[in-house]
Amino acid sequence: MTNRQIPVGVSARHIHLSQQHVEILFGEGYQLTEMKPLSQPGQYAANETVQVSGPKGTFPKVRILGPARSQTQLEISKTDSFVLGIKPPVKESGDIAGSAPMKLTGPAGEIELQEGAIIAARHIHFHTDDAKRLGVKDKDRLRVRTGGERGVVFENVIARVSDSFALDMHIDTDEANAAAINNGDIAEIID
Amino acid sequence: MTNRQIPVGVSARHIHLSQQHVEILFGEGYQLTEMKPLSQPGQYAANETVQVSGPKGTFPKVRILGPARSQTQLEISKTDSFVLGIKPPVKESGDIAGSAPMKLTGPAGEIELQEGAIIAARHIHFHTDDAKRLGVKDKDRLRVRTGGERGVVFENVIARVSDSFALDMHIDTDEANAAAINNGDIAEIID
Repeated sequence: MTNRQIPVGVSARHIHLSQQHVEILFGEGYQLTEMKPLSQPGQYAANETVQVSGPKGTFPKVRILGPARSQTQLEISKTDSFVLGIKPPVKESGDIAGSAPMKLTGPAGEIELQEGAIIAARHIHFHTDDAKRLGVKDKDRLRVRTGGERGVVFENVIARVSDSFALDMHIDTDEANAAAINNGDIAEIID
Repeated sequence: MTNRQIPVGVSARHIHLSQQHVEILFGEGYQLTEMKPLSQPGQYAANETVQVSGPKGTFPKVRILGPARSQTQLEISKTDSFVLGIKPPVKESGDIAGSAPMKLTGPAGEIELQEGAIIAARHIHFHTDDAKRLGVKDKDRLRVRTGGERGVVFENVIARVSDSFALDMHIDTDEANAAAINNGDIAEIID
């Protein structure tokens, strides 16, 4: 990779759960179990899945990503949102105020949430060292170009910088399909 | 609209049928019937739908666009292709050589096709007068920018110029969802 090239990770629909919600859905004292690690250090895809429902439809098995977080957050594509019949806003991860409602069903219980469903805003995780090398600051808005016949330039790609991040751009399945990008492909920051 | 702004039409999955295939699916001598006109003069959404199947899944009611054409052609998004379990190439409309197989089922019969399923390459229809005004030639590759928080620049947008076209950019649902565009929104040709 040359200087401004970054690997792209395609995020399929997934959910983060609070420990309180883990226990409502899976039983008192239940702990999520790791199936495989993700690109970001300490994050993993759990063996557990949960059913997510909206007024129009259901996804029976949405993958849970661990570890448990302070807030429950569903991340879906706009295509998925039409299936469920909800209208989630495009938001940064962690910012669920005013996001869309959903119902979660697990083996031990169910939860009706008034908010928690978002379409995740496209973003790049930068380790602090990568950000320094590339001249990028936390919360910068970047333009990123993908190549090929179906190439696009994604605007307003949010930079997120932390010592705990590994360099990776995250887009959802609509964005990946629109650009004919596969997980692990390379894109380039153009400004 | 200023000079280089164009309306965007979002194409949901649909199919064009040859008259021969209309008659296999709906019966001898059958003629498609118009439900509503499309943006391109003479083109219409038909009242008729057809079931489209692949190795992994089925869409029970895919809208037929009329009038009948010389070749049967299914146009779906990449997201749709995963549901069917086929791998259609990104192609210009009319270029179905080497495209993906599919099975069609209608009230009077069914057809197994070895090719015909494509992901339509993003394109703009220009009336000859619009093309002249904008300095665009048939088959030019353009870059088109959408606005807003989820803005993108689509590259390799194919110009199609004809006296029988009305000015309209056509993208599929993946592209629309990736850019948070709705039918009738405006985009801008940047070069």
